[in-house]
Amino acid sequence: MSVNNPWKKRQQQVYSYLEENRIDFAVIEDSEWRRNASLKYLSDMPGDSLLFLFRRGHSLLVPWDSIMAERVARVDQIIPFTDFDRKFLTAVEAVTEKEHLSRGTIELLSATPYPVYKEMEERLPEAKLLCREEGIHKKILSLRHVKDESEQALYTEIAETTDLLIDDLEKQLMSGSLTTEADIALFLEKRSREAGCDGLGFETIAAGPERSFAIHAVPSYSGALITGRGFTIVDFGVSKAGYTSDVTVTIARGNLSGRQTQMLEAVKEAYSIAADMIGPSMPASAPADAVNEFFSSKGYTMPHSLGHGIGLDTHENPVLRAGEEDSPELKPGMVVTIEPGLYDSEAGGIRLEDDYLITAKGSRRLTNSRILHIPDKK
Amino acid sequence: MSVNNPWKKRQQQVYSYLEENRIDFAVIEDSEWRRNASLKYLSDMPGDSLLFLFRRGHSLLVPWDSIMAERVARVDQIIPFTDFDRKFLTAVEAVTEKEHLSRGTIELLSATPYPVYKEMEERLPEAKLLCREEGIHKKILSLRHVKDESEQALYTEIAETTDLLIDDLEKQLMSGSLTTEADIALFLEKRSREAGCDGLGFETIAAGPERSFAIHAVPSYSGALITGRGFTIVDFGVSKAGYTSDVTVTIARGNLSGRQTQMLEAVKEAYSIAADMIGPSMPASAPADAVNEFFSSKGYTMPHSLGHGIGLDTHENPVLRAGEEDSPELKPGMVVTIEPGLYDSEAGGIRLEDDYLITAKGSRRLTNSRILHIPDKK
Repeated sequence: MSVNNPWKKRQQQVYSYLEENRIDFAVIEDSEWRRNASLKYLSDMPGDSLLFLFRRGHSLLVPWDSIMAERVARVDQIIPFTDFDRKFLTAVEAVTEKEHLSRGTIELLSATPYPVYKEMEERLPEAKLLCREEGIHKKILSLRHVKDESEQALYTEIAETTDLLIDDLEKQLMSGSLTTEADIALFLEKRSREAGCDGLGFETIAAGPERSFAIHAVPSYSGALITGRGFTIVDFGVSKAGYTSDVTVTIARGNLSGRQTQMLEAVKEAYSIAADMIGPSMPASAPADAVNEFFSSKGYTMPHSLGHGIGLDTHENPVLRAGEEDSPELKPGMVVTIEPGLYDSEAGGIRLEDDYLITAKGSRRLTNSRILHIPDKK
Repeated sequence: MSVNNPWKKRQQQVYSYLEENRIDFAVIEDSEWRRNASLKYLSDMPGDSLLFLFRRGHSLLVPWDSIMAERVARVDQIIPFTDFDRKFLTAVEAVTEKEHLSRGTIELLSATPYPVYKEMEERLPEAKLLCREEGIHKKILSLRHVKDESEQALYTEIAETTDLLIDDLEKQLMSGSLTTEADIALFLEKRSREAGCDGLGFETIAAGPERSFAIHAVPSYSGALITGRGFTIVDFGVSKAGYTSDVTVTIARGNLSGRQTQMLEAVKEAYSIAADMIGPSMPASAPADAVNEFFSSKGYTMPHSLGHGIGLDTHENPVLRAGEEDSPELKPGMVVTIEPGLYDSEAGGIRLEDDYLITAKGSRRLTNSRILHIPDKK
């Protein structure tokens, strides 16, 4: 059952949490204003709904799009959001009363805004409201960060498609058929769908030599040429069933300056340091510390983390962040990126990023990004 | 100055608000977890920063990407986020102390999560913290909703490009060169960049006859064919300088069923009702009430609002929502969508959406969407 209906198993894990903590029900919200992929994780509904999970072992979905919910949601009951005037506070208040839990204990997500919490207190004066950093949201995240059997199987597929796209991108670039940032991004969009996945997991960053100094260029790609000398960063992910990969290929074109060559070598070396050491039972900060020490010894500073978990969100825990004392432990089943990068206002930016599955004995490299050298035309 | 540097003018409007409300400073946050386009509106920095606005007339930006901030941000001072360990609470605490305002009045955005607010209270026990629905966030939104001279000029350009794309889309569809949902979405992506804008404002929804029953299909487009009989919804926007249009074209292909024909006629009629009446000095609910009454008389229910403001966000206020007693007033300078739609699990969905500028005397239609009839091939 866990492979065919992992949602039921995940809901049961939440019921156990509610039982242990004597909480009558929790409300998981995903809305335009507060996105939360835990809704999809727990119900397979892609978004725009409230999910009520009751300690007595019952799930209720309140969706914006009822037709879609009836088709895809894995829950016990569905009530359209329109029944509550499409208002969060109204829905929670009405469900609480309907279930005779006005004096119960109710947990809201930690993202709940302060004014919303205060109004909920006024509407449900006898209820015990919980809204904590270390609460249900973190509990569900801790489940999400270790990928189960069905998720690991999915990541094998996603990684294969990602590698296919990297190979195809290389061929196209070598043949000279992609000349602008937009050419690259749209090629990946088109190719990803031909390859049978749902598309890309986030907006591709394609930043040519004039714009690669930025960690995340804005706009993420433009009509600018990528045929000049220097670095072009291409950061993309392939999406399937809501899950995404996250890789970065850098194109190094033409004769590089001394500084550019040094940056390139430093990023490759940093990548190897991290890839060689990453594995279970170490703090997520350990490979990041090693990379930062190495960069520091060469006079460089990396302005972002070494990597992060991926899954239903492009950025999940654990974050591979240097210098953290209470860094989470890497565990078998986690899927994380390794993505050292260096950026310079003059020389541009370079980043190399792959996805790794943490295993019982070490790690398995899922994707095969690279730095593509394209020589000047003779 | 207001046209060349509207950001300075907008910051001054916030300083006046702080002065009137005796608030020492406000913190505007845009992060991966809490997006807020007011950051861009007030500083021209596209995102991932904290903006401190001090009552004494001073602006301080704390960006994640310092190189980009130095290039584009219109502020008095920049301090890298890395100086504060890239942590929101650390940055606010440090800036408060540096400015000798530990006993001052500080306003946080209404989206601030309850646990973050509580920790801020502990860290700054002598400060007076404000975090209110009707606070600085709403104040800035009320400025944003009425577009100034520079924004209206931009919308004229954006609408022209949007119309160009609608015309081109029609030509391509009529010639039969676009056969899948992805063909449509990628054609719009490519064409938008050729047309000199920044790209599309949000992920295009292209939902063919099998999927148009959903208000917002997931995934937003797939490799599915659009060549079968029935409705295909194409919802997209053109983006420039951070602002987006928002239009929907529906393709009605082949001989329609009786129900489909009735739905199509009802949506067109609803559009005309709204377009004819919309103008200044009426509640935003008025055209929505008229449309809902009309739909109701025909036995239909529209599962979403009639329309909404657009700008730096795809969905801004005012919302044209029926049945609201305290509906905001439509004012000259507002840019809103009119987008009646009907959805049926069997017959599919149909929506027609255009953007309108509210003027002193009525309204100006900005875009020219349509329902495209494509006959069955003989």
